[in-house]
Amino acid sequence: MIERYEQSEVSAIFSDENKTRLWDETEIAVMEAYAESGEWPASDAKKVRQILLNHPTDLKWWKKREESLKHDLNAYLEERLRHIPVELQHLLHKDLTSYDTEESAFVRMLAAATKLVLAALDEIEKALGNQAKQHRFTLLVGRTHGQPAELQTHGKRCITWLQQLRTDRRAVELAGGSLRYSKISGAVGNWGQLHPEVERLALERLGLEPFCGATQVMPRELYKPLADALASVVLTLDKIGLDIRLNARPPYPLYQEPFGKRQKGSSAMPHKKNTIRTEQLEGMARMASSYAAGIAQNIRTWEERAIEQSCIERVFWPDLFHVTLYSLRSLTNVLKGLVIHRHNMNIEIVMGRGCHATAGAKEVLKALIAPYGLKAEDAYRIVQLAAFNLFEEDVPKLAWADSYEEAEQQLAEFAAAWQPVGQPATLEQHVLSASLRPSPQLDASPWKIKQWNRTLKRVFAEEQACIEWRESFRPRNILRHEARLFEELRLT
Amino acid sequence: MIERYEQSEVSAIFSDENKTRLWDETEIAVMEAYAESGEWPASDAKKVRQILLNHPTDLKWWKKREESLKHDLNAYLEERLRHIPVELQHLLHKDLTSYDTEESAFVRMLAAATKLVLAALDEIEKALGNQAKQHRFTLLVGRTHGQPAELQTHGKRCITWLQQLRTDRRAVELAGGSLRYSKISGAVGNWGQLHPEVERLALERLGLEPFCGATQVMPRELYKPLADALASVVLTLDKIGLDIRLNARPPYPLYQEPFGKRQKGSSAMPHKKNTIRTEQLEGMARMASSYAAGIAQNIRTWEERAIEQSCIERVFWPDLFHVTLYSLRSLTNVLKGLVIHRHNMNIEIVMGRGCHATAGAKEVLKALIAPYGLKAEDAYRIVQLAAFNLFEEDVPKLAWADSYEEAEQQLAEFAAAWQPVGQPATLEQHVLSASLRPSPQLDASPWKIKQWNRTLKRVFAEEQACIEWRESFRPRNILRHEARLFEELRLT
Amino acid sequence: MIERYEQSEVSAIFSDENKTRLWDETEIAVMEAYAESGEWPASDAKKVRQILLNHPTDLKWWKKREESLKHDLNAYLEERLRHIPVELQHLLHKDLTSYDTEESAFVRMLAAATKLVLAALDEIEKALGNQAKQHRFTLLVGRTHGQPAELQTHGKRCITWLQQLRTDRRAVELAGGSLRYSKISGAVGNWGQLHPEVERLALERLGLEPFCGATQVMPRELYKPLADALASVVLTLDKIGLDIRLNARPPYPLYQEPFGKRQKGSSAMPHKKNTIRTEQLEGMARMASSYAAGIAQNIRTWEERAIEQSCIERVFWPDLFHVTLYSLRSLTNVLKGLVIHRHNMNIEIVMGRGCHATAGAKEVLKALIAPYGLKAEDAYRIVQLAAFNLFEEDVPKLAWADSYEEAEQQLAEFAAAWQPVGQPATLEQHVLSASLRPSPQLDASPWKIKQWNRTLKRVFAEEQACIEWRESFRPRNILRHEARLFEELRLT
Amino acid sequence: MIERYEQSEVSAIFSDENKTRLWDETEIAVMEAYAESGEWPASDAKKVRQILLNHPTDLKWWKKREESLKHDLNAYLEERLRHIPVELQHLLHKDLTSYDTEESAFVRMLAAATKLVLAALDEIEKALGNQAKQHRFTLLVGRTHGQPAELQTHGKRCITWLQQLRTDRRAVELAGGSLRYSKISGAVGNWGQLHPEVERLALERLGLEPFCGATQVMPRELYKPLADALASVVLTLDKIGLDIRLNARPPYPLYQEPFGKRQKGSSAMPHKKNTIRTEQLEGMARMASSYAAGIAQNIRTWEERAIEQSCIERVFWPDLFHVTLYSLRSLTNVLKGLVIHRHNMNIEIVMGRGCHATAGAKEVLKALIAPYGLKAEDAYRIVQLAAFNLFEEDVPKLAWADSYEEAEQQLAEFAAAWQPVGQPATLEQHVLSASLRPSPQLDASPWKIKQWNRTLKRVFAEEQACIEWRESFRPRNILRHEARLFEELRLT
Repeated sequence: MIERYEQSEVSAIFSDENKTRLWDETEIAVMEAYAESGEWPASDAKKVRQILLNHPTDLKWWKKREESLKHDLNAYLEERLRHIPVELQHLLHKDLTSYDTEESAFVRMLAAATKLVLAALDEIEKALGNQAKQHRFTLLVGRTHGQPAELQTHGKRCITWLQQLRTDRRAVELAGGSLRYSKISGAVGNWGQLHPEVERLALERLGLEPFCGATQVMPRELYKPLADALASVVLTLDKIGLDIRLNARPPYPLYQEPFGKRQKGSSAMPHKKNTIRTEQLEGMARMASSYAAGIAQNIRTWEERAIEQSCIERVFWPDLFHVTLYSLRSLTNVLKGLVIHRHNMNIEIVMGRGCHATAGAKEVLKALIAPYGLKAEDAYRIVQLAAFNLFEEDVPKLAWADSYEEAEQQLAEFAAAWQPVGQPATLEQHVLSASLRPSPQLDASPWKIKQWNRTLKRVFAEEQACIEWRESFRPRNILRHEARLFEELRLT
Repeated sequence: MIERYEQSEVSAIFSDENKTRLWDETEIAVMEAYAESGEWPASDAKKVRQILLNHPTDLKWWKKREESLKHDLNAYLEERLRHIPVELQHLLHKDLTSYDTEESAFVRMLAAATKLVLAALDEIEKALGNQAKQHRFTLLVGRTHGQPAELQTHGKRCITWLQQLRTDRRAVELAGGSLRYSKISGAVGNWGQLHPEVERLALERLGLEPFCGATQVMPRELYKPLADALASVVLTLDKIGLDIRLNARPPYPLYQEPFGKRQKGSSAMPHKKNTIRTEQLEGMARMASSYAAGIAQNIRTWEERAIEQSCIERVFWPDLFHVTLYSLRSLTNVLKGLVIHRHNMNIEIVMGRGCHATAGAKEVLKALIAPYGLKAEDAYRIVQLAAFNLFEEDVPKLAWADSYEEAEQQLAEFAAAWQPVGQPATLEQHVLSASLRPSPQLDASPWKIKQWNRTLKRVFAEEQACIEWRESFRPRNILRHEARLFEELRLT
Repeated sequence: MIERYEQSEVSAIFSDENKTRLWDETEIAVMEAYAESGEWPASDAKKVRQILLNHPTDLKWWKKREESLKHDLNAYLEERLRHIPVELQHLLHKDLTSYDTEESAFVRMLAAATKLVLAALDEIEKALGNQAKQHRFTLLVGRTHGQPAELQTHGKRCITWLQQLRTDRRAVELAGGSLRYSKISGAVGNWGQLHPEVERLALERLGLEPFCGATQVMPRELYKPLADALASVVLTLDKIGLDIRLNARPPYPLYQEPFGKRQKGSSAMPHKKNTIRTEQLEGMARMASSYAAGIAQNIRTWEERAIEQSCIERVFWPDLFHVTLYSLRSLTNVLKGLVIHRHNMNIEIVMGRGCHATAGAKEVLKALIAPYGLKAEDAYRIVQLAAFNLFEEDVPKLAWADSYEEAEQQLAEFAAAWQPVGQPATLEQHVLSASLRPSPQLDASPWKIKQWNRTLKRVFAEEQACIEWRESFRPRNILRHEARLFEELRLT
Repeated sequence: MIERYEQSEVSAIFSDENKTRLWDETEIAVMEAYAESGEWPASDAKKVRQILLNHPTDLKWWKKREESLKHDLNAYLEERLRHIPVELQHLLHKDLTSYDTEESAFVRMLAAATKLVLAALDEIEKALGNQAKQHRFTLLVGRTHGQPAELQTHGKRCITWLQQLRTDRRAVELAGGSLRYSKISGAVGNWGQLHPEVERLALERLGLEPFCGATQVMPRELYKPLADALASVVLTLDKIGLDIRLNARPPYPLYQEPFGKRQKGSSAMPHKKNTIRTEQLEGMARMASSYAAGIAQNIRTWEERAIEQSCIERVFWPDLFHVTLYSLRSLTNVLKGLVIHRHNMNIEIVMGRGCHATAGAKEVLKALIAPYGLKAEDAYRIVQLAAFNLFEEDVPKLAWADSYEEAEQQLAEFAAAWQPVGQPATLEQHVLSASLRPSPQLDASPWKIKQWNRTLKRVFAEEQACIEWRESFRPRNILRHEARLFEELRLT
């Protein structure tokens, strides 16, 4: 991974230093397991163990040797033997094939990196939980299809984000469950030389247990779900970032990424404050998806193994962890510093003119007009027409511009004349006053509309009907059940 | 492809009817090529030709036969032989291997379907060209990172969309170039039985030419670029759709998808008009990308061929064409019926308070303040500060809500008090009046700001400086080069 | 999915018939939950329930209606209302948004199709288990990197295949765990109208439980692991198929796909018996991977939902299930009818000349030569040299062919002279007789080789050394631990 | 890219050193274009140019600055300004937005790296061409579905590989055609400040031309085909590698990867010579496909641009080039050192017993038996039966083994008794002698077989028939057209 996105702990885990150290640990574990089973004195094993731990692999020597052997594990073994007295050399790599040494190291690297991811998930979940609590009563219009929908709170949106991440975390944890297996069972997986009990004992020392049915290598089916789950994490981070980006758009941005006091948004346009971190998450999701798609193919190998998977595992696994961890940390920082424009959230509700309540209002109306012979369909169409009416009223008709000059002139006139809606007419009032009128956007005949208005007038002659209707627009009423979410997640 | 997205012309091309007809044509072409080279009388070939054309393959018989033979081409041949008199049967499939018959049919199906795509591209390019012309002077703030950037026109945005599609079209055409090759060169591609000249003559009759170096099959490297190019088309359609969706968001939607007069946007919320067609394009892009990724892998086969590619080609090629064509047609309809809210485009400019001109204004200022010892960096920071100042001024401070009731109360008060900006303060005026003030968002000391204001005051004491400054905000000035784009594409 | 690969049960599950039936069930469940909570008489709910069950949705009417509404759920509701008396119509879809009706149906379709997959996995696991038992003692040289490695049995190979599939099954089951959740919580997921208790009661009736934190839709993070797991199944099937294909290659094929007595392998070459089913699995794996990659992207949506995921879910989920099930059933058939050429397995061992034992033989030698001052590295190089020696001995040197005639002549002479190895010299004997000689393939000086031979001669002067050496080549010795695998999986 | 696969020239191209140098060149080109258009004295531009060239960007300073600005191009500009006298600073970055500076540098990096790929393609094509010429007459049985098919030469197989690579090269070249475009047209692509002519002149100096219709950035549709083409190259390399692996399998390997004289194939099994390089190509193809799939998604951006594509382009483009170049060079080395076992190619033909000629022989037989009332179908079935007969004859029947001891015993007996086929019975002779017999693998009645034998006896009573029949098995006859391929590619 390039420096820009590199996470140092991940680099450390997948470094040659660490890898050869883990190889040492496998070799030692086998040696000790053999000692335990009486193959040689425990003291001999202890001696070699001490030597190996005192003399970490000389990485330069190793690399150089590999060039002529074309086999990294054999080169490693030759390096190790340099430090061991001849009479103890037979303890090293006894009855092992290369991947007996390598597999457990590989799986332990995955496990260590997975721990980092889980810790970073803790962080972001905490940040989201805090934000959910803090904004438990911060009104916010939900959006579906990018359009204003029903009312909710920002806290509730945080909960939906949180629960998506928790779904991913669950997948990471389940996938991580496979990382407890490994194998030391020889060249084709039937313990050619080494006794199954030695495998068990050695793996136990490494905190692992044998997988029943390995070949020379562990089946890659075991690791695919982890890559898939990591990609899922980054896809979810991107989804959260996307929501932030979408709502950071002027004129009434609800969210804004933290922006440093010396930061520059653009070399050309000084006013810019761009959502660069959340945008980047989309790129990260593309990367993570690509890495996971590549890793998935590693299931495909020949018979008792071939080495197709090796190069891609050397590159994609660390890169996938870098990307996942970078993305988790980046979004955590964004969330912690997120600027939340509560007044713009209110503006959005006001400018929605009551449409945030159409779902409930329509139900109320359905009941109210039923006695007058109107049906559910009428209630639906009345509210729809009323909503369309409202947003048609203040649209000026612009003549066509045939030159930049004319366009400029129009703009100037428009700016001078523009009266943005201060106290906008609301759906609540529009229906209550029974003043529906035809709309170019809907197939509703004047006759039909007349009938509707007549009915509405009758309906709202009753004080109780008016109360019910008005009630259906009140946030406290609309949000009456939302508390349940916070309670269930103990975010109160 | 499911009925919902199926394009009937694509289904026809990839139908068994058409496939067996194309197989007939290959067989006939070879027969006639043989006749031409003297192998048998032209009249014999003509007879068989007539028989085959008069008796299209009985698809039921064929399918049934295939079940026991497990070989579709062999079953087809047996079906065909049923109609041919014994003495002429040796003319059929003479010296051919199955794929000699199949390959040219396959490539001709791809070519026919590609034609449909190119025709649909014509349509959408025309729609975009028309819209570009029509909106050549429709002012629109460009957006980068979702934030208002410099001024442009809607016509110019159409041009950028158009040119992206033309880039894809070029890729489709280049990829289509490979569809002129095919092979009739036997089981391993070295014309075991059939003479290369017969291959050439037969392919010529089919409008094709031999590929030098085929095996039993054509190398799939030839077709991968076509799948990639089709995916690129759909990705671009999705990008255009994305721009439409992004700008269809209230409160000031610039675009709106056509919405039928009897359409319903939601079963619960009658006011909804959702961007369902442009959203769907994103799903289509996911599909197209998936199909192309699968097809790419068909390069991988064993030696002179194996049949890994067959099942995926039977499914993914038609499905990729269905998706591409469906998407092209869907977006063309959206574009043709696109509602363009020009007044909202103006509102956006007005509410931007002049930030659409910061790139140029900063340059003008740089020159104006230089004589007073201020640097480019100062010009940048002055404009940045001015812009931040403007958007900080009218933000009310909201107290914290601890219950839905309180939130509701706040909202009600807010709505009552809200004075949306009518004639908003502009950047142009703010700098001109030398009234910069500190901002919590920027590291600029009061002392520095004082210096800036002092300089600005001096600068704008000159009438000429004011003219230059004001000029930098005028659309006609900002857009002075845009015409070039329209001219170059002959969209004037 | 095209007819060729379509699985009728999958089609039934994802059919409009079934979908609208499941929608009915959601609507009924909500109605009954409402009745339970006292909203209306249980008898009313019962009446509507009966009506809906007695009148399945008229699919034609529904489709036609959808065309004008552009909303499938709304069209469905209108269809349903046709059958319900006016006074009971308010029971239908009360307080629901479209996806409240749709989500549980969707997840139940996934669950039903997943059951089919698990049943098919049962079948193939049984077939593999049987084959493992049957071939518990069928000797087979393992292959790594395509090269003969250590000895194993065919039964053991079956176990490795089996355990890979079981790893996938575990992933399918874990992923399936998410299918117990759904939501009926309104347009933005906070139960705008409907009480959370009604959701709980209704879902309970459908065998489901509420997901805490849904938006309008369920988060797609829940379903991605299922698609990934299905792709993993098909990738594993392809891996097994690949092993079969690799070992079905003449001259000594170990496996052969079942071949019908009337089957034709090729239209040109009558002798062909191709591995078409196992090859096809590779194409199926490409398809499954593509579908899963597409489905993964459905996590990405806008805010409380947009509809990007809908089209791809309509197409890719059923197609992924078709492909998975088709592949499972196809390979199960191949395995059940698999021809196993045991004599060729023996030929392979014999022609390996004892190399199947080099891992152990090298260890034995290491111990035997140690007293003579030779090291582990010498043991390794002696066995390596001996192996290379053996395969160099019988390679005739061919002159260069400059024309087809000459090549033909050479071939004829070669054929006449060729003495295939009958009782081939073995590694066992070659080392025992201390007759190592230089090899062009290895850097080992004549001096070194002399030293080795001298030592070997001394070593094998001892009868016990000979016994140990010979023992290391005996299958019963090499396979002494394999039994453990069969025992652990209870395949004895 | 990790060191193991890193290609130093690629690293150099994408290094910060080179990138900032290319940025310098863009800035200089614009300065000079401005000078040319009279904006400032050419001598000023020359001075700044000299300063920039003499003072390469101080990368450390730059990185540090970027940390606080969060904008790499702005940080670069500040670094550059450090070296330029105040009175000339206005020449730098005049009227540019960041991506005006960056885009041409980016495209020039792609172009430079593409050149490396084309040069490496030259190398491998030359290697393949040489091998094709050298082995123009090296007989080799083609394989379809892994099964022996018709005869060809190894030279011809090389040609098919070569032509696949040339197809890819063509795609790389076509895709490379888009790399001649770039843009210097401001923040939204309509030359806010900078005149289109200055763009043209500046790009011309950089060897580029303007793209009509850019936004702030170039449309990524232009680069996707290059990534796709590079992936195609690696997929083809993998396909070639696959053919080598498949034919490197004992007992009669046709090819063998070069194996160093000090190389070790396995830490456990000294005899191993593994196909590690060609196996690795499959991993490389997985990587390249993943990178290309990720890059494809970069088409998707918001409006006039957002920065989703940046991180993935920083990582995937260089990595894709590393992988492509590494793979090209690796396979070139494999091909140059490829060991070709011609005697095993002959063994394969001999052991095929004449099946390499069934396609032609069947045709000859068809004509020969026609006068006796037998049909094409009979000819097909006779040859099929004869072929099956041949391979059934020498299969010993093995009793079942119930223990390792028994299996071992069987193996020993088998080895002792095994008579590998020396002068195997051939298809040619088997049919000629009219000795067809029933086969358990085919539905052919004894009566039918009798009829066939009777006819064959009559047919081959004629000397001429025997000659024709025999002729159909002769390589010179079978390969009579192959020369055409070599001639067409001038490989004679």
